[in-house]
Amino acid sequence: MNELTINLRTESKTPLYEQIYAYIKEDIRNGRIPCKEKLPSTRALAKHLEVSRSTVELAYEQLLSEGYIEAEPYKGYYAAQIEDLYHLQKTKAQVQTVEQPREKYRYDFTPNGVDLKSFPYNVWRKLSKEILVDDKTELFRSGDSKGEYGFRRAICSYLYQARGVECDPGQIIIGAGSDYLLMLLCALLGTHHRIAFEDPTYMQAYRLFSCLSYELIPVGMDKNGMKVSELAQTDADIAYVTPSHQYPTGIVMPIRRRLELLRWADECDGRYIIEDDYDSEFRYKGKPIPSLQGYDAHDKVIYLGTFSKSIAPAIRLSYMVLPAPLMEQYEQKTRFISSTVSKVDQMIVQRFIEEGYFERHLNKTRALYRSRHDVLIEELKPLSSVLKISGEHAGVHLLLTFRNGSTEAELIEQAGREGIRVYGMSDYRIRKDREKEATILLGYANLTENQIKNAVRILRDCWI
Amino acid sequence: MNELTINLRTESKTPLYEQIYAYIKEDIRNGRIPCKEKLPSTRALAKHLEVSRSTVELAYEQLLSEGYIEAEPYKGYYAAQIEDLYHLQKTKAQVQTVEQPREKYRYDFTPNGVDLKSFPYNVWRKLSKEILVDDKTELFRSGDSKGEYGFRRAICSYLYQARGVECDPGQIIIGAGSDYLLMLLCALLGTHHRIAFEDPTYMQAYRLFSCLSYELIPVGMDKNGMKVSELAQTDADIAYVTPSHQYPTGIVMPIRRRLELLRWADECDGRYIIEDDYDSEFRYKGKPIPSLQGYDAHDKVIYLGTFSKSIAPAIRLSYMVLPAPLMEQYEQKTRFISSTVSKVDQMIVQRFIEEGYFERHLNKTRALYRSRHDVLIEELKPLSSVLKISGEHAGVHLLLTFRNGSTEAELIEQAGREGIRVYGMSDYRIRKDREKEATILLGYANLTENQIKNAVRILRDCWI
Repeated sequence: MNELTINLRTESKTPLYEQIYAYIKEDIRNGRIPCKEKLPSTRALAKHLEVSRSTVELAYEQLLSEGYIEAEPYKGYYAAQIEDLYHLQKTKAQVQTVEQPREKYRYDFTPNGVDLKSFPYNVWRKLSKEILVDDKTELFRSGDSKGEYGFRRAICSYLYQARGVECDPGQIIIGAGSDYLLMLLCALLGTHHRIAFEDPTYMQAYRLFSCLSYELIPVGMDKNGMKVSELAQTDADIAYVTPSHQYPTGIVMPIRRRLELLRWADECDGRYIIEDDYDSEFRYKGKPIPSLQGYDAHDKVIYLGTFSKSIAPAIRLSYMVLPAPLMEQYEQKTRFISSTVSKVDQMIVQRFIEEGYFERHLNKTRALYRSRHDVLIEELKPLSSVLKISGEHAGVHLLLTFRNGSTEAELIEQAGREGIRVYGMSDYRIRKDREKEATILLGYANLTENQIKNAVRILRDCWI
Repeated sequence: MNELTINLRTESKTPLYEQIYAYIKEDIRNGRIPCKEKLPSTRALAKHLEVSRSTVELAYEQLLSEGYIEAEPYKGYYAAQIEDLYHLQKTKAQVQTVEQPREKYRYDFTPNGVDLKSFPYNVWRKLSKEILVDDKTELFRSGDSKGEYGFRRAICSYLYQARGVECDPGQIIIGAGSDYLLMLLCALLGTHHRIAFEDPTYMQAYRLFSCLSYELIPVGMDKNGMKVSELAQTDADIAYVTPSHQYPTGIVMPIRRRLELLRWADECDGRYIIEDDYDSEFRYKGKPIPSLQGYDAHDKVIYLGTFSKSIAPAIRLSYMVLPAPLMEQYEQKTRFISSTVSKVDQMIVQRFIEEGYFERHLNKTRALYRSRHDVLIEELKPLSSVLKISGEHAGVHLLLTFRNGSTEAELIEQAGREGIRVYGMSDYRIRKDREKEATILLGYANLTENQIKNAVRILRDCWI
């Protein structure tokens, strides 16, 4: 082949070399230039197209880089052998994105709500601005995979004061959400474990471990939380628990059961307890219940906490406290895994804690949720003949157990017809067949006192 | 027991009920109040301590909540049975935090560098401020687990234009770094896979899959990248490759090898190719090499990209494009896993892309790295008798293969003695015994032209 007629568009934005490259590439792909065919020399093609030789050279270099042509020393350029290899016809499946239309409810008693109106926007903006104000290249350099030391120190001191957690900043790992930290924990522990879960439980964690191929064992609960006697009869070596405020029942595990659980962990090497302390900041009667980790004398408790509930879900900040032996393993085995939280976010929250904003924010939201909690309880009183309230005085939801023969599905459906979304306990049960009574969860963090009053009045009408 | 003598400090900040609670709790824990012992009534204790009855009631309620005392109806309060259960003596291991003292080098040729001086601080600050300026509660509500749609749309259009990636925003998942996205991919794919790696390779990904218990198979490379003939003889079902700029060799996989690789994937159901397109924004000769994903006609390529190299390591933003069938699995199986990136960060980068800042920033850094690349090549010329340069014209590092009998360890040590850090190819090899020649990596993104000149002059002296 000595000539290639290419219609060059000199007025085009696309550089000439790119036009030449694209033309030859297309001709090789569709077979118009057969494989092994010799291409014109750069000099000849340049002359033919009336462009500079370097333009053609650039086009040939790109074709060479991508492998469409091959250079043979002292001979010239040849089309590479590709046309018979594979059909590039697109037969790709169309993406069916599942964008479920959200059902509209007038009132949504979600148990996972957070009052975002009380989010301290001004403080957040101020801190964010102050942190970004200096051209600190350090802010954008890769950071410590455990999280920045100063931030871990701030969390450490908060956890000691507020939750009775005893640790060193060196034992803390920051991560973008509890889901991520559980995934990291799995990478650390390996998959050969059997994990016991309270039933009902926090299904997000249950599903995550299930995705990661763990064997999961549901363990029943009594009024004191997970039955350790039942746990001891399984071959579980890890127990995932929410002792300070069981999710979703709200049960507080009393000291005696805690000690039984710790003793279970201590009976065999390699047994661990994962304490998910997801929302114990919110307690409306007396002091917060201290963490289980604080009682752990033998390095058996892996402690998890989050700022999703206490600050905002979308800031993606959680932390994990590893017992010393696991932290040593982490340093050797998984420390190479990069942090998932930007330094800017870490520094904002560090200052948010250190400058007292976090405590003030907690006090504010605690007072807010307490009022909503009190209004909800008050409004539910006329229903006391048909239902029993439990899980109150803490967290951001409570439970209604019905004694009038209604089923959970009926209750949800009756409320739904009036535009009110309520949640059924069966969503939280691992063994669905164990359902005995109809239990409904009502979350109140997302609704104002007036909204709660209106909604419960409607519920009263449709439930009696 | 009818009396409890408690020294109340009325001037203390600690509320009186907390003092009473703490005193009784301590006495129960250390056995001074034996188990089953009856406590004074709230009325009696209030009178004895000269405090209000509600103060004592609050203390008792807290002790009840935590399980230190038990209430017997019509009888009163009793110390719970805990003292014989478990010794709370701390025997915890001390945390040995491995804070390795960083060796100080005058010049560090890290291949993972990024020029942070050119980071667009002002734009970043401006965008961050503008996004935070409205009290938008939406910003802090939990977002789409795949990432915000608008941000995915911006990435989608960037990837099509810059990398020839063909996808729909619905196929993109945003994550806080490539490590995280690979962990998420593992949760999606399950652990029963055998993953083939180019050898040498990006060890971060290799180690991650190894931590997650995958069977990993090193596959040799020739000048065109991973040998597909060798791959076909293994029982791998997933191939992890860096076709546009092999890490660390810099090899561009030509079109023919790409098609062979795609054909390998198409030969069996369930085979996939992970294309890690970590730094192909940086190419200093001609156009960028298009992605492998763009040639994939049969939904075989999982595409990974990141803003760590192109913007900054600490912003923690990567993306993954799943082929349609895997995206369907994701929707069913792992969509419940929360996003790891804050909405604020997503919106900053979305606007950074959409308002043209990203393109300008890429052009700026590309020009900067190109100059550094050219200076480095120029300065290395006097060494051409002892070494061969490869992997140039792209990325942010190049390779020096020595032909003078020096070993890699010697070369690193010689440079280190002069305060210069260089990196050996053996760090990137899976099979360490395959090392034939001494190959050194020099990254130049982190060093100014003058630093490069000075450092290479020293290297010339110590290496010849």
